[in-house]
Amino acid sequence: MASDKKVSRPKARLPRGFRDRSGAEIAAERRLIEIIRGVYESYGFLPLETPSFEYTDALGKFLPDVDRPNAGVFSLKDDDEQWLSLRYDLTAPLARYVAENFQHLPKPFRRYQTGLVYRNEKPGPGRYREFTQFDADTVGTPSPAADAELLMMVCDALEALGLKRGEYVVKINSRGLLDGVLDAVGLPAEEGERRGIVMRAIDKLDRLGVRGVKALLGEGRKDESGDFTKGANLSEEAAGKILRFLEIGSGDFSTVLRDIVGDNAKALAAIEQLGEIVRLCRENGYDAEQIAPDTSIIRGLDYYTGPVFEAQLTFPVQNEQGETVVFGSVAGGGRYDDLVARFTGQQVPATGISIGVSRLLAALTSRGLVGEVKPLVIVLSMGDTVSSFRIAKELRSAGVHAETYVGTKKIPDQLKYADKRGAALVIMEGDDERAAGQVTIKDLKAGAELSKSVESRAEWVGARAAQETVTRAELVAKIKTMLGQG
Amino acid sequence: MASDKKVSRPKARLPRGFRDRSGAEIAAERRLIEIIRGVYESYGFLPLETPSFEYTDALGKFLPDVDRPNAGVFSLKDDDEQWLSLRYDLTAPLARYVAENFQHLPKPFRRYQTGLVYRNEKPGPGRYREFTQFDADTVGTPSPAADAELLMMVCDALEALGLKRGEYVVKINSRGLLDGVLDAVGLPAEEGERRGIVMRAIDKLDRLGVRGVKALLGEGRKDESGDFTKGANLSEEAAGKILRFLEIGSGDFSTVLRDIVGDNAKALAAIEQLGEIVRLCRENGYDAEQIAPDTSIIRGLDYYTGPVFEAQLTFPVQNEQGETVVFGSVAGGGRYDDLVARFTGQQVPATGISIGVSRLLAALTSRGLVGEVKPLVIVLSMGDTVSSFRIAKELRSAGVHAETYVGTKKIPDQLKYADKRGAALVIMEGDDERAAGQVTIKDLKAGAELSKSVESRAEWVGARAAQETVTRAELVAKIKTMLGQG
Repeated sequence: MASDKKVSRPKARLPRGFRDRSGAEIAAERRLIEIIRGVYESYGFLPLETPSFEYTDALGKFLPDVDRPNAGVFSLKDDDEQWLSLRYDLTAPLARYVAENFQHLPKPFRRYQTGLVYRNEKPGPGRYREFTQFDADTVGTPSPAADAELLMMVCDALEALGLKRGEYVVKINSRGLLDGVLDAVGLPAEEGERRGIVMRAIDKLDRLGVRGVKALLGEGRKDESGDFTKGANLSEEAAGKILRFLEIGSGDFSTVLRDIVGDNAKALAAIEQLGEIVRLCRENGYDAEQIAPDTSIIRGLDYYTGPVFEAQLTFPVQNEQGETVVFGSVAGGGRYDDLVARFTGQQVPATGISIGVSRLLAALTSRGLVGEVKPLVIVLSMGDTVSSFRIAKELRSAGVHAETYVGTKKIPDQLKYADKRGAALVIMEGDDERAAGQVTIKDLKAGAELSKSVESRAEWVGARAAQETVTRAELVAKIKTMLGQG
Repeated sequence: MASDKKVSRPKARLPRGFRDRSGAEIAAERRLIEIIRGVYESYGFLPLETPSFEYTDALGKFLPDVDRPNAGVFSLKDDDEQWLSLRYDLTAPLARYVAENFQHLPKPFRRYQTGLVYRNEKPGPGRYREFTQFDADTVGTPSPAADAELLMMVCDALEALGLKRGEYVVKINSRGLLDGVLDAVGLPAEEGERRGIVMRAIDKLDRLGVRGVKALLGEGRKDESGDFTKGANLSEEAAGKILRFLEIGSGDFSTVLRDIVGDNAKALAAIEQLGEIVRLCRENGYDAEQIAPDTSIIRGLDYYTGPVFEAQLTFPVQNEQGETVVFGSVAGGGRYDDLVARFTGQQVPATGISIGVSRLLAALTSRGLVGEVKPLVIVLSMGDTVSSFRIAKELRSAGVHAETYVGTKKIPDQLKYADKRGAALVIMEGDDERAAGQVTIKDLKAGAELSKSVESRAEWVGARAAQETVTRAELVAKIKTMLGQG
């Protein structure tokens, strides 16, 4: 109800770290998701949708002593006084789903899921607090065939999206191999803290280079700001072995590695497992340009138990500082054999890969690979709304996107509206034309070209050169021809 | 890391009021959304996506004094100590978006949005705490053409989904008309509380019938449990007029109404507005079976300022008590000219309609109108995984959904897996067959038929009658033929 007293009005503002999206970006993301979905379904992966919320304890974050367990995740208490959290990835909900429905699922259980995930973190440029992931996982088999299949499937998806050979590479490494290397250089699992330092150092190879990593493996490193990061205090020899391991990159695994890991059983098993995954890919026609081992891939510290994967785009783009850089990671994953056991105590082998949809979309957009939008025709409202509606309906029946102007403004404003909407064509049917069985079609694209040779916007909007009068009967066919859909 | 000490494990359980969805239901909902989207885009509506969260004050719920404003909505404080709420519909976020971006939008602004909305309410059978809506709104025009367009567009969408004339009806009423009737019977806007009682009474016409509503318009009503609901204490004459208004239903508005509302200006304006909306629909070929005025439609008490809409499915279904009932409402909406003004103080006329996707999906599923799933072929793993992968890849290249078994179980278990997965065909290539350039195709559907005449599942799984051996070269063509895709 209207009221005369002063009211304080809320300010209309988007919450920090979130964003509104419209038109072309939504259409492009939808198309991207459809293409990935098509490939994954053709492999026999079935869709699963879990809810946005999970019980907080099920997400693997333990309820802290403070009132709200909000570190990293969005959490709240429901009306049963139970803590709920919005999912921060699609893997933890999958583990909950598998544990809850284990008896009834076909094994291996292969599902894909796409949807929003939430991070209660400090937002930054390009970093939002909700974003879309697209995951595929195979649960219930330790076979390297399951890992190899995911790698090949991701290659197929990236190529279906229009990327060419050489524009992407799916890299593979192994947590078991890293464990074996660390064992072999005298840093066993019990040395958790120093291992953590080494892993984080390796993960920074891209950014810090060999010198930086070497410092972190040894006594530590002072960065440009003067801040000191503690090192792992490895011996020269041990650090040397790790650096040689990293230098293998995608090079010759078997001989160089044997030289580093000796007869460490864990490392040898991991090498064999990696070798089998790569062999399956190669013999199915995926070459080293598409799928390649790389000793420098780390992917998360706690989560993975075996092979780890990372899909990278290799073409150059400009970063925010205007520098030319390689686009980098768009998907990551690996084997996680312990996640279901968190609930059931029973180890269930599982492997999966997750595509960062927004990042991939940004890359494809920069490549011009997505974003086609169907042209729009707008029928102006010139006295007889019924007739405008009828024209639009006929066009839609012929497969054309056609809008009737439903506002109350006059013709010049309607033309400006059509221009702002990016319409390709505008249809005008004045009273005289209607009486004569005629309509006028205005070509806004041609008009825009024309406007470069006339003085003002107002002039071209009024210009008659880019318009054409046809009979009402031939209208639909004419529009289809003009849109190139004839 | 594995550990020997006892740990307390979280229980794997779906949060109360939420659900997991899989396979066919997801595919059906996706198809439904695609069809609605196709129709709405063909009308020139553009997609918009707002985030899951809004600032709580922007949602129109005022922050209560208690710690968490959780009544009805899911709310939490972010790390800026600001209250955020998950959207409970798609209209409040639209109002925020329009207020925030008003200058830059084409007017009228026409957008559709589909997505999850959240209710922190007691869940019940078929009532979940997150569900999908599909909204279309036109913001920035008071024209009845905008309302008429939404009604016609919803008809088109329902028919595109396979519903026939007579299986649905879009009903229209007017808050302005109701206001006018209440004015005319001596219950002006100042009598807010008694008006509320009358509105709620009208809204219960379906459930309580004329007698129940009459009691509530008068002294009040005692229900079966003995609970007493206070009435509006209207005079016999006033209550009689309201009942006569309701009895009009979809009948003759103009003459009967004039008789009730006399020369009440508000009511006459509303009658004219309704009349224009209905005229536009009729002259565009939408008849009373599709779009009909109905004086008993209420749709929310505070929100709407003019016409209100409700799409109903008219065919009978069984309810949870096994009774045959009409399916009822699947979409609702109306004109809300005050929502943007909450932020800006400037009234922006707006009208919209929201489809309850899950309810509509349930109705269409009961009609067998959605749910087709592409048949799946599973290639068993019999010693040479590379060859299994190759066969599946060839089938995918030919447009067949083909899965390679990536588990580690033996053949009988693989066949059980294929059966559980609902596969149409299974491909087996044993070592001898591979050497001879042959493969065996097992028809699981035919096998299942056959099993009715054999004694045990184990027997039919092993039965050879529903299988056929072909050469490797003719495999793909043969599969296509067997799936009816040849």
